[in-house]
Amino acid sequence: MEGRAVVVREGERFRVVDLEGQQVGDLFAFVADDVREYASAEHTRVALSRLFPRPGESFLTNRRRPILRFEEDASPGRHDMLCAACDPTRYASLGVVGPHASCQENLLAAMAGLGHAGVDVPQPINLFMSIPVGADGTLGWETAPTAPGDSVTLRAELDAIVVLSACPQDLNPINGPGPTALAVELLDRP
Amino acid sequence: MEGRAVVVREGERFRVVDLEGQQVGDLFAFVADDVREYASAEHTRVALSRLFPRPGESFLTNRRRPILRFEEDASPGRHDMLCAACDPTRYASLGVVGPHASCQENLLAAMAGLGHAGVDVPQPINLFMSIPVGADGTLGWETAPTAPGDSVTLRAELDAIVVLSACPQDLNPINGPGPTALAVELLDRP
Repeated sequence: MEGRAVVVREGERFRVVDLEGQQVGDLFAFVADDVREYASAEHTRVALSRLFPRPGESFLTNRRRPILRFEEDASPGRHDMLCAACDPTRYASLGVVGPHASCQENLLAAMAGLGHAGVDVPQPINLFMSIPVGADGTLGWETAPTAPGDSVTLRAELDAIVVLSACPQDLNPINGPGPTALAVELLDRP
Repeated sequence: MEGRAVVVREGERFRVVDLEGQQVGDLFAFVADDVREYASAEHTRVALSRLFPRPGESFLTNRRRPILRFEEDASPGRHDMLCAACDPTRYASLGVVGPHASCQENLLAAMAGLGHAGVDVPQPINLFMSIPVGADGTLGWETAPTAPGDSVTLRAELDAIVVLSACPQDLNPINGPGPTALAVELLDRP
């Protein structure tokens, strides 16, 4: 399971497609000309007074500027911004011995490939990830409810580097029977 | 309204006291010998499957190590780790013209005073802050329910730099009639 980085210009749209269903995608967005500014869950929540934007609303950066607009949700509408990206330490804590792909390493590798080594690892926009919040503050870990072909469409509001990692988590139920592939489609390019 | 930084050694406890009641405190904790590691809301949530630790549970760092143990809660038990620290951009968006104290600037000034300029600004541990999460994912902004003298006690699990900012927010109801002072008491020092 890998991550991919694409540069998306202001005004361009892209679609993230869950090709086989039941697959979480960890999405990150950095400002292209200063990667210290990036989509921030906690600044987005404050601006919207919501855990996650609705279509028509925007994700804000850590400098409170809109970076991605949530254009369309052609999925069951379950997404998460509460759970950190998986990383080697997380897999070790779940009993994995030896290497295991992770969203954090996918992010770092994809950004390094564009010349941005050692970026901050923000809280991801966890597309299709179903983490119900109980009245007592407990978090559930459900399987992504997506069917094959479900998608979300986003539009860049700044020139951005967007990274998507198909989450390789296979030690809890979030990806159903096992990780599968996602696609990123750039909608405004010939 | 100011922020203060204190170095707390592994095993030492400290108490944060809301002296007059209805006051939010933004708490941050950095590993003393490497401030790139700090208490992380998203890593804590994953480890505990909860929005906020209960007494007896620990806050984890962005490297998933326990840094603060939540020892005792002598308050109504409402705390938040969803909302970013207030900053100048936030106050500008609320209509403030000119300077306004903020938790982010308090943090940066306190850390710079210890020789750590330009640290990352983590999601704070917002003590006494009451942000109810609705079943539809909406966030409420309630007044801190604390009475004068309410407190929480924490214990360092690593040598840590702890920063507390009495939140100067006066444009929404979180601090009741207006910001007031907090105290930090180091419990294991003569």
